[in-house]
Amino acid sequence: MEQRTKVDLKAPYLILIGEEDDPTYAKTGFGIVQWRPDIVAGQLRFPGCTVDLGVPDMTVKEAARQGVGSLVIGVAPVGGAVPQQWWDLMEEAAWAGLDVVCGLHLKLAEHPAIVAAAGKSGARLIDVRVPPPGLPVGTGIKRRGKRVLMVGSDCAIGKKYSALALDQAMREVGMNSTFRATGQTGIMIAGEGIPIDAVVADFVSGAAEVLSPDNDDDHWDVIEGQGSLFHPGYSAVSLGLLHGSQPDAFVVCHDATRTTVSGWEHYGLPSIEECIETHVQMGRRTNPEIRCVGISVNTSALSKEERTTYLAELSARTGLPCVDPLIDGCGEIVRYIRQHIAEESTES
Amino acid sequence: MEQRTKVDLKAPYLILIGEEDDPTYAKTGFGIVQWRPDIVAGQLRFPGCTVDLGVPDMTVKEAARQGVGSLVIGVAPVGGAVPQQWWDLMEEAAWAGLDVVCGLHLKLAEHPAIVAAAGKSGARLIDVRVPPPGLPVGTGIKRRGKRVLMVGSDCAIGKKYSALALDQAMREVGMNSTFRATGQTGIMIAGEGIPIDAVVADFVSGAAEVLSPDNDDDHWDVIEGQGSLFHPGYSAVSLGLLHGSQPDAFVVCHDATRTTVSGWEHYGLPSIEECIETHVQMGRRTNPEIRCVGISVNTSALSKEERTTYLAELSARTGLPCVDPLIDGCGEIVRYIRQHIAEESTES
Repeated sequence: MEQRTKVDLKAPYLILIGEEDDPTYAKTGFGIVQWRPDIVAGQLRFPGCTVDLGVPDMTVKEAARQGVGSLVIGVAPVGGAVPQQWWDLMEEAAWAGLDVVCGLHLKLAEHPAIVAAAGKSGARLIDVRVPPPGLPVGTGIKRRGKRVLMVGSDCAIGKKYSALALDQAMREVGMNSTFRATGQTGIMIAGEGIPIDAVVADFVSGAAEVLSPDNDDDHWDVIEGQGSLFHPGYSAVSLGLLHGSQPDAFVVCHDATRTTVSGWEHYGLPSIEECIETHVQMGRRTNPEIRCVGISVNTSALSKEERTTYLAELSARTGLPCVDPLIDGCGEIVRYIRQHIAEESTES
Repeated sequence: MEQRTKVDLKAPYLILIGEEDDPTYAKTGFGIVQWRPDIVAGQLRFPGCTVDLGVPDMTVKEAARQGVGSLVIGVAPVGGAVPQQWWDLMEEAAWAGLDVVCGLHLKLAEHPAIVAAAGKSGARLIDVRVPPPGLPVGTGIKRRGKRVLMVGSDCAIGKKYSALALDQAMREVGMNSTFRATGQTGIMIAGEGIPIDAVVADFVSGAAEVLSPDNDDDHWDVIEGQGSLFHPGYSAVSLGLLHGSQPDAFVVCHDATRTTVSGWEHYGLPSIEECIETHVQMGRRTNPEIRCVGISVNTSALSKEERTTYLAELSARTGLPCVDPLIDGCGEIVRYIRQHIAEESTES
């Protein structure tokens, strides 16, 4: 039932890469392949494209024949303008009955040829930046199951990656977990979700409630965070997400060498301790059991030795597992969670 | 310049009351007349209407002749359905060049006759529940002038009334202040504002910044609050408003006998002390000087004696002026502000 208030995508995907020759512009495509190889049927590349996701090349015709569900735009167009070739391809996909899924500032609905094609075939044109209609106001009513939310000392600090890595680590040890996406790339990876920062303020908590509904007592929702409680522009979305998620646990995401809010350099970052305290204080309003279960640090700017020292010191200071998820994975955080939360009674 | 990103209304108003016979349904109309008699030209009542705002009765024709700017719907239709008479009247007003201003769930844009009339005359059809386009993301950059924000232990607890009373008390002692509206009735009273809870989450702080722009050093914006940091459904809007307003001061609005969140009775209200501490803690992120300057209490359920005791005790406990604005006004809070803030240097 909650599906109706989420963006939900039809797998498997054909990922459009186009003529891209810089892998950094194709990070959405790479992210989908990295985390969900099971839902990727192939990639569509134009002649001269040097980026390779390492999955089969495929035309729209072949994709349609193989039952592919969606053409997913996995790349940002260089310079922002969408080449005519893309439009033609999206129209072809829509004719062939593939949903067209996109998180760019394309207005698919403003292209009559694509709209007409989709209308004939029954394909959907899905902008993953647009929240579903009918989101409710948050009730604050306790739901069954466990939840862990990624929070950050800043935006763009590894919350999505940390959530995906933690979800993977949980499933590797046999836990029952689901990654819950709150941003466009996350939604493409999960195949569903809600772009929470595009939701009208009054409905943010309600959207977060819909995103992680009632579940089995031993189930964990691993929720991608957005923004930061400390961000002068984006704190509203973070508090609504915190209150609506009712997390039992949270992971602080941080960058070892960042000292100011990215793009808002007149603001310093909070200390990790302040970050933990503030999230506990605000989060206990809807879940009195909330606690920090780990710190996920981007240490890419540190040498191997510096990294080891940094994480060990941080762990000693906070008593929490501190990892760089890209290097260490999130196994340590999973162990901490199982020790401190999962073995408690789930009746709370 | 900031006007373009606010809802702004054209005075004076003709207020539509219709056939109402219950004053509680006409509280928008009464609110406008109470706080802004200067912008009310008259009221429009149908035969049999027993509610009287105490302003001249006027037809649309008379209003147009006298240069009235807007027909403002000052009443909620009984049962929710809008009588045909209202539609006819709104169409007549639009033909006559009056803006039609409404905060109800009417879709003026879906009535072709009204849209056509407005198109011919140049009148605007304004839904005060709809935020203006083009709101920016919050910058967090410090603005000149002083700001005081109403906050609450709950929603619907007197924040608008308190802001209006405080603004009035400031002006009575010769201070330079402006009421800043964040909700639909407030916008009709102020003649401008932003319905902040209808803004997309990413832009709430930015909307609050636009609402109280750079101003003279001795100018006070008195900002209507929305929601509550402690509300399981509406906390997102409150934090965005707090961060974007960068208030130097805040007033806690409370109800002496309310113990649970109205409509969310499974949640208790925070103590007033917790409410103060949390707002200082979260608010200092964008204004380190933030402080509580008073408590505004609805004591309507208390006897006169109980009221006196309650406010005296609260004041002793917190060291702050505690008033029922309906009975005491906000003079005490203004005195506290002048003692503790206004005489400080405005360079901060």
